[in-house]
Amino acid sequence: MKIGIIFEVPPFVESLSKCPKYGLHNPLRGQERYLLLGDVSTKAAHMLAQPEVADFFARLIQRVSPKSYKQALGEVHITQKFLENFSGDQVRFLARSFAVPGNHLGQQSYGYRWPYGPVAIIAPFNYPLEIPLLQLMGALYMGNKPTLKVDSKVSIVMEQMLRLLHYCELPKEDVDFINSDGVTMNKFLLEVKPKMTLFTGSSRVAEKLAADLKGRIRLEDAGFDWKILGPDVQKVDYVAWVCDQDAYACSGQKCSAQSILFMHENWVSSELIPKMQSLAERRKLEDLTIGPVLTVTTESMLEHIDKLLGIPGSKLLFGGEALENHSIPKIYGALKPTALFIPLTEMLKSNNFDLVTKEIFGPFQIVTDYKQDQLMMVLDACERMHSHLTAAVVSNDPLFLQEVLGKSVNGTTYAGIRARTTGAPQNHWFGPAGDPRCAGIGTPEAIKLVWSCHREIIYDIGPLPQHWEIPSAT
Amino acid sequence: MKIGIIFEVPPFVESLSKCPKYGLHNPLRGQERYLLLGDVSTKAAHMLAQPEVADFFARLIQRVSPKSYKQALGEVHITQKFLENFSGDQVRFLARSFAVPGNHLGQQSYGYRWPYGPVAIIAPFNYPLEIPLLQLMGALYMGNKPTLKVDSKVSIVMEQMLRLLHYCELPKEDVDFINSDGVTMNKFLLEVKPKMTLFTGSSRVAEKLAADLKGRIRLEDAGFDWKILGPDVQKVDYVAWVCDQDAYACSGQKCSAQSILFMHENWVSSELIPKMQSLAERRKLEDLTIGPVLTVTTESMLEHIDKLLGIPGSKLLFGGEALENHSIPKIYGALKPTALFIPLTEMLKSNNFDLVTKEIFGPFQIVTDYKQDQLMMVLDACERMHSHLTAAVVSNDPLFLQEVLGKSVNGTTYAGIRARTTGAPQNHWFGPAGDPRCAGIGTPEAIKLVWSCHREIIYDIGPLPQHWEIPSAT
Amino acid sequence: MKIGIIFEVPPFVESLSKCPKYGLHNPLRGQERYLLLGDVSTKAAHMLAQPEVADFFARLIQRVSPKSYKQALGEVHITQKFLENFSGDQVRFLARSFAVPGNHLGQQSYGYRWPYGPVAIIAPFNYPLEIPLLQLMGALYMGNKPTLKVDSKVSIVMEQMLRLLHYCELPKEDVDFINSDGVTMNKFLLEVKPKMTLFTGSSRVAEKLAADLKGRIRLEDAGFDWKILGPDVQKVDYVAWVCDQDAYACSGQKCSAQSILFMHENWVSSELIPKMQSLAERRKLEDLTIGPVLTVTTESMLEHIDKLLGIPGSKLLFGGEALENHSIPKIYGALKPTALFIPLTEMLKSNNFDLVTKEIFGPFQIVTDYKQDQLMMVLDACERMHSHLTAAVVSNDPLFLQEVLGKSVNGTTYAGIRARTTGAPQNHWFGPAGDPRCAGIGTPEAIKLVWSCHREIIYDIGPLPQHWEIPSAT
Amino acid sequence: MKIGIIFEVPPFVESLSKCPKYGLHNPLRGQERYLLLGDVSTKAAHMLAQPEVADFFARLIQRVSPKSYKQALGEVHITQKFLENFSGDQVRFLARSFAVPGNHLGQQSYGYRWPYGPVAIIAPFNYPLEIPLLQLMGALYMGNKPTLKVDSKVSIVMEQMLRLLHYCELPKEDVDFINSDGVTMNKFLLEVKPKMTLFTGSSRVAEKLAADLKGRIRLEDAGFDWKILGPDVQKVDYVAWVCDQDAYACSGQKCSAQSILFMHENWVSSELIPKMQSLAERRKLEDLTIGPVLTVTTESMLEHIDKLLGIPGSKLLFGGEALENHSIPKIYGALKPTALFIPLTEMLKSNNFDLVTKEIFGPFQIVTDYKQDQLMMVLDACERMHSHLTAAVVSNDPLFLQEVLGKSVNGTTYAGIRARTTGAPQNHWFGPAGDPRCAGIGTPEAIKLVWSCHREIIYDIGPLPQHWEIPSAT
Repeated sequence: MKIGIIFEVPPFVESLSKCPKYGLHNPLRGQERYLLLGDVSTKAAHMLAQPEVADFFARLIQRVSPKSYKQALGEVHITQKFLENFSGDQVRFLARSFAVPGNHLGQQSYGYRWPYGPVAIIAPFNYPLEIPLLQLMGALYMGNKPTLKVDSKVSIVMEQMLRLLHYCELPKEDVDFINSDGVTMNKFLLEVKPKMTLFTGSSRVAEKLAADLKGRIRLEDAGFDWKILGPDVQKVDYVAWVCDQDAYACSGQKCSAQSILFMHENWVSSELIPKMQSLAERRKLEDLTIGPVLTVTTESMLEHIDKLLGIPGSKLLFGGEALENHSIPKIYGALKPTALFIPLTEMLKSNNFDLVTKEIFGPFQIVTDYKQDQLMMVLDACERMHSHLTAAVVSNDPLFLQEVLGKSVNGTTYAGIRARTTGAPQNHWFGPAGDPRCAGIGTPEAIKLVWSCHREIIYDIGPLPQHWEIPSAT
Repeated sequence: MKIGIIFEVPPFVESLSKCPKYGLHNPLRGQERYLLLGDVSTKAAHMLAQPEVADFFARLIQRVSPKSYKQALGEVHITQKFLENFSGDQVRFLARSFAVPGNHLGQQSYGYRWPYGPVAIIAPFNYPLEIPLLQLMGALYMGNKPTLKVDSKVSIVMEQMLRLLHYCELPKEDVDFINSDGVTMNKFLLEVKPKMTLFTGSSRVAEKLAADLKGRIRLEDAGFDWKILGPDVQKVDYVAWVCDQDAYACSGQKCSAQSILFMHENWVSSELIPKMQSLAERRKLEDLTIGPVLTVTTESMLEHIDKLLGIPGSKLLFGGEALENHSIPKIYGALKPTALFIPLTEMLKSNNFDLVTKEIFGPFQIVTDYKQDQLMMVLDACERMHSHLTAAVVSNDPLFLQEVLGKSVNGTTYAGIRARTTGAPQNHWFGPAGDPRCAGIGTPEAIKLVWSCHREIIYDIGPLPQHWEIPSAT
Repeated sequence: MKIGIIFEVPPFVESLSKCPKYGLHNPLRGQERYLLLGDVSTKAAHMLAQPEVADFFARLIQRVSPKSYKQALGEVHITQKFLENFSGDQVRFLARSFAVPGNHLGQQSYGYRWPYGPVAIIAPFNYPLEIPLLQLMGALYMGNKPTLKVDSKVSIVMEQMLRLLHYCELPKEDVDFINSDGVTMNKFLLEVKPKMTLFTGSSRVAEKLAADLKGRIRLEDAGFDWKILGPDVQKVDYVAWVCDQDAYACSGQKCSAQSILFMHENWVSSELIPKMQSLAERRKLEDLTIGPVLTVTTESMLEHIDKLLGIPGSKLLFGGEALENHSIPKIYGALKPTALFIPLTEMLKSNNFDLVTKEIFGPFQIVTDYKQDQLMMVLDACERMHSHLTAAVVSNDPLFLQEVLGKSVNGTTYAGIRARTTGAPQNHWFGPAGDPRCAGIGTPEAIKLVWSCHREIIYDIGPLPQHWEIPSAT
Repeated sequence: MKIGIIFEVPPFVESLSKCPKYGLHNPLRGQERYLLLGDVSTKAAHMLAQPEVADFFARLIQRVSPKSYKQALGEVHITQKFLENFSGDQVRFLARSFAVPGNHLGQQSYGYRWPYGPVAIIAPFNYPLEIPLLQLMGALYMGNKPTLKVDSKVSIVMEQMLRLLHYCELPKEDVDFINSDGVTMNKFLLEVKPKMTLFTGSSRVAEKLAADLKGRIRLEDAGFDWKILGPDVQKVDYVAWVCDQDAYACSGQKCSAQSILFMHENWVSSELIPKMQSLAERRKLEDLTIGPVLTVTTESMLEHIDKLLGIPGSKLLFGGEALENHSIPKIYGALKPTALFIPLTEMLKSNNFDLVTKEIFGPFQIVTDYKQDQLMMVLDACERMHSHLTAAVVSNDPLFLQEVLGKSVNGTTYAGIRARTTGAPQNHWFGPAGDPRCAGIGTPEAIKLVWSCHREIIYDIGPLPQHWEIPSAT
């Protein structure tokens, strides 16, 4: 493994280039590596299940990424469960292929999942353990050799995790771990031309990389995630609590955070908004239930709020002020959990739409409402948004669910009265939809899709038909 | 349906833009369209099974694409079989999803294949019916609305096929059919920004489109397809005949055509090359078993041959001359079926490699040989090639097959004594591998991969746990 | 094919015994037969799609099986769609296997679906075309050689269908068609010992055969099918119409016919029962919307009604009388569409339960109601029943559906406001559940389950590890 | 859990009868139990991975089942790996269902794997840990409540394992553990009528149970397992060693033990038989590489040998004598590893066939040879055998493999130069084929097939078509 701060690209280029396109292993080669990686996963899962190890990683995450202990521990827990999922033979089960009879005796076609060989992974700051680890192991399971870059602010977490993996007998040469700025990484990618690059991060960088790498990429980018409350008002306490968690946990710095809430008119007269407000006001800096925003300054968030308040009919529901009594550096943001109401009809106007649906990666959400006969306007708003990561349809009305789900595309959509926008566990697919570059994370389907391609081998061993003779040319 | 020669882009843009991202149908909406498309397929398959209809299309193909009647009829036959495969309920079976139990009562996660909505298809000249029809129907089956462009030289074939589909009750508004040059099509794509574009054609255009469309693309581009003959010499007549068909059928204008032949030393003393020569010399212009080359001139092919003959040890095995007594216009090529021997060690030299592995989309192949202990050099040559479409490993030696297959990546690889490089039937995957942008064609797996993305919907309908209370913020 | 009335068993025994256990074809042998059967299906589907052919079969069915023209035509239509589903390559796609990497280089395990070889099919009178045809083709698709027996009263339909299949190029030696009584068939089975026997018919015969054949059997036996109406009263016209069709179409002679209706108390005050009555009274002998009952006499049905009316609180809702003005022979039954109300609490008593839940294969149903807090009693009744074929939960209340569906086991259960008990189309599984002997019919899953078994072949071709030496004995 | 020696059946009947047919959990109910069982598996796997725990179980196995330490430890190891395979979310992944779009808006069909509810498991003496544990967990994973009976001679092993599972938090009421003789167990089964019974053991008992339980059973019974050596003689040392292990490990008391060896004539002149003899003679009582035979006495084995030696051309190759210097009780067998040669043509005679192919569950095998043109006779012999558990085709000749594999049916067949008959790991299917009652063990496919049935739920929630009106009766 190449590890440490990068001064020069060449050794990393050289290391990755050594990996052939057919990978470190594939279904026809190096089969014992499937078992090895199953064993590594079993052992690493067991390590993370130890309270002192889990605590170590949770606290390490907290040192670099602003989230509560419980959120950090949740990240460790999901990582542990993911590793359990690929214990024993489960890595080789990922390499399951299929075969279909051919046209004649001796012919049979096999569909394999084949690795890409040399690949790259670029992971963001907000989940310093879960995102890089899950993508890294997925890449390895399918037979690739990854070069991994994690946002430098938080890369110490994966650096420690890699040491744990080495302790669990992951071969050191399986992964190269780069510490670099974005410019250097870009240079590295252009030089080494990985067969596949997985990028998790902002849409802006994603689009640049997609063009630079000519589409040899899978993306999990930002989301302006919506939640629609249906006509059946119920479980108001529960829904308010889920809204609070969806919008403000990790100070809103989840790509799945609730960015906009569409309330059916029946909810307007409920206690929902007051309850959301009181829940938001429970959050405090001491336990990091609210905390620094790493990519947007306080100033620019307040400015954004001001612009929005210029829209007719808009109003501040709660928050909207800077945090007080803190030592958060100016380069970061510090905002109270904030919700702004914008009228639906105003929002849909073309001069307002981009402003209202601009993603703020912080403790901030838009709230609006709609009449029974305005549902198509809500769906139109969702259709016009650019990224389609998570969504929630909070209703137990089956025909309402059917209408909204059948007319939307978000990759991870929760439905039902307990629906949320956040929640990226290891047991179900998480990722955007609606774009052929979309990545997923963690599930068998996601791993196979992101980290392997289809290869078909058609065996045609004969025998020749009896008395075969050379046919005419065609 | 928008149809006819394109003068202005706007009506096509307008038509495609009307299709929402959630498509014309999806697993939760417009279910009756799955049945409709199954019926269209049943009927169209039955039409193509009529001898007079098959003959009509075979002759129409021959008028625009230089290939023998049998090759043209084969294209019609594969199209028919493909349509049979999606008769009855088989279109809706493509939309099969899966579900997994959630964490608690009322939670269940569903993995769906979701359409992209507005999409584009760009198809080449060499298979005027099969490629556009299979991709078009695949796109429709999964719920997309495609704008289809076929190379103008041959687009009359699909124009007729679309009329047949309309007769079989495909709704006219399901497909827009553009006739345009490449520049106009590029303009169209940049303006309408389809959610997905399927491109089949040259690598050069593929790379440009990939960058223009920021990777929202699936590609099936050119191939420099190799064949390796293993140590077990047998069935020489058969192998020679397959080589002749692989290299020279359709005058070598298949993306799966044999571009290079690696012979194990045991084959050198066999009758293989003389037999290949005599088979090549059977080919004649009258029945189009050899014919015009649409994208390379005679002159540039002869020039390429001259350059190759400058390599030490190279020699012309057969062919190497222009066709005679024909009226093929100068803008096209006209070359006798040609094979050149290049020594393996010379080929691997960095100053020769690009020249030797340059794809000539015509009746032309490289031949080389290797000693028992030079197999790694052969595999190294295959690894260094750029595109990885088809390949053949002609051997029944299981350990030899295992070695070559486990160290290569071509997307459609035939193995065994009957192995070929061409053969793109409807029953097994056909497409390149080793690149996340790779497309496949025709099989259920290919259709699902190319024309849909994963969407996960997690139902979470409750009930809440008894005595549920609001937890602390996290 | 052996065909015609059976006088002697031996030729049938001899013919079936010739089929080896590895079948007429399997994934490694006789691959061209998959294509042949795909072609037979394509052609036969096309034949049945011709109005005159469909009409011929519908009228032929009506001559022997008492059902309306529309019901008979529906049977033909489902048969046609089933055949379309296995057009082209879809038969070989049924033989799809999977492979998983082994422990070391050269090892790979393959899971195949293998045929049983010689098998038998016994089909009942009520679906003279659909049941035998679907099971027959399923058996053939997977590589078996079936001997087919259809109830002699109706076997002329399959006799004609077999001629059509032969016309569509099904090889004559693929199927033996026996006309015999049950005793002779039993003798045949005991002598030839088919590797598998599919039986569709009464529970009584099913249990006898299961013991005689030592469990080498798959069963689709009778059903006492229930429907539960949930708390959300809506679409009363629609629900009443579905109840009428479920209970009385084909004079109740569907194994999926509604045998008992549990109404939530909210429905009691609705117009449901009166509407059901008026719909039942539309039925008339002329168009066979009501008609002869082939396996129960009028007398025994009236006797059963009398016994039920002895239960306290029971009452006749409608019907309960013999049909009039007809020439139906005495050996058959002739009853007006009948519904009886039995109080839930009485029904559950152990001395009443068997009587109330006795299946009457005629136009007869039990009706009962339950209070909101009696749902567990309803579910307990369903649990105590013996066969678990179809069921319906008529409600759009998601928590109600979840409760009933999660606490029941019927193999084909419809849920939602449009739920029915009948409906055995070709696109979804139809069959009982809760018993390892259960068969399904028509879908790819059913065909694979009923007509093939798992075979695993593990290739282990080497090479041996370098320097391998003989280990100690263990 | 009911546990301990059974004196009276009633409490066990009562306990099992409490389990409803819809099981302890199913895909729509008790979802948290999937996670619970995943956790139990993770923990139990980790326990078995501890050297002292593995050693404890290996030695415990050795105390009751005569096998070498390495064989016993192998059993523990496979059990551990199996449990690893169902760590984390993998239990719920077993419950994965599928869905297909219906005919109209609001209709969708779901195919579930549903439990049977109350079930029974009967396990034999030869794998006291692996067989009962794997089947037990499989039954639990799918939602069943099993009553488990292990052969009383060895049941102490599972009794200890159950304590370990309880320690790993398996709920005590999930499993009932019966200690009884066969008669009592039979009484229990007839009384409680489990919905499914898994029996592993002798064919004689299997057939009786199949009739008693009317086929509600899955069987893994004895095997007369064959090995065919193909024409390509190679790796003689290796093949001899595998033969020795296949025939004599665990003193031949594996249901997968090699019972007959068919040698191609090319092998006759090789050193194979002498090498097999010298390997057999390495085996010794001290380390249990040869040991007591639990179900056949020495006397009856010697008698069987005598009978076989009466066949013309037969001869003793090695062994054929009682073990010496031991204290094995007379009720058990004690035989040196034995091989007898029987001429193929003699073996096929109808008066010899049953004698030659009688399974001796001890260290005993038949050897024969065949000429190149006698392969069909060999295949005919295999076809005529009754049970089809394991087999081996020792050859790397692809056409030979194809011929033998395509004309045989054994459920677990190894192919290739490294082929063996024994080897029942957790990563690939193990079980007989050719019979609808066949069970498998350990893999996801086996668990789903044996321990669940198909249930289809069709949601049909509407809305109704606009302006829907009651149609005519049909």
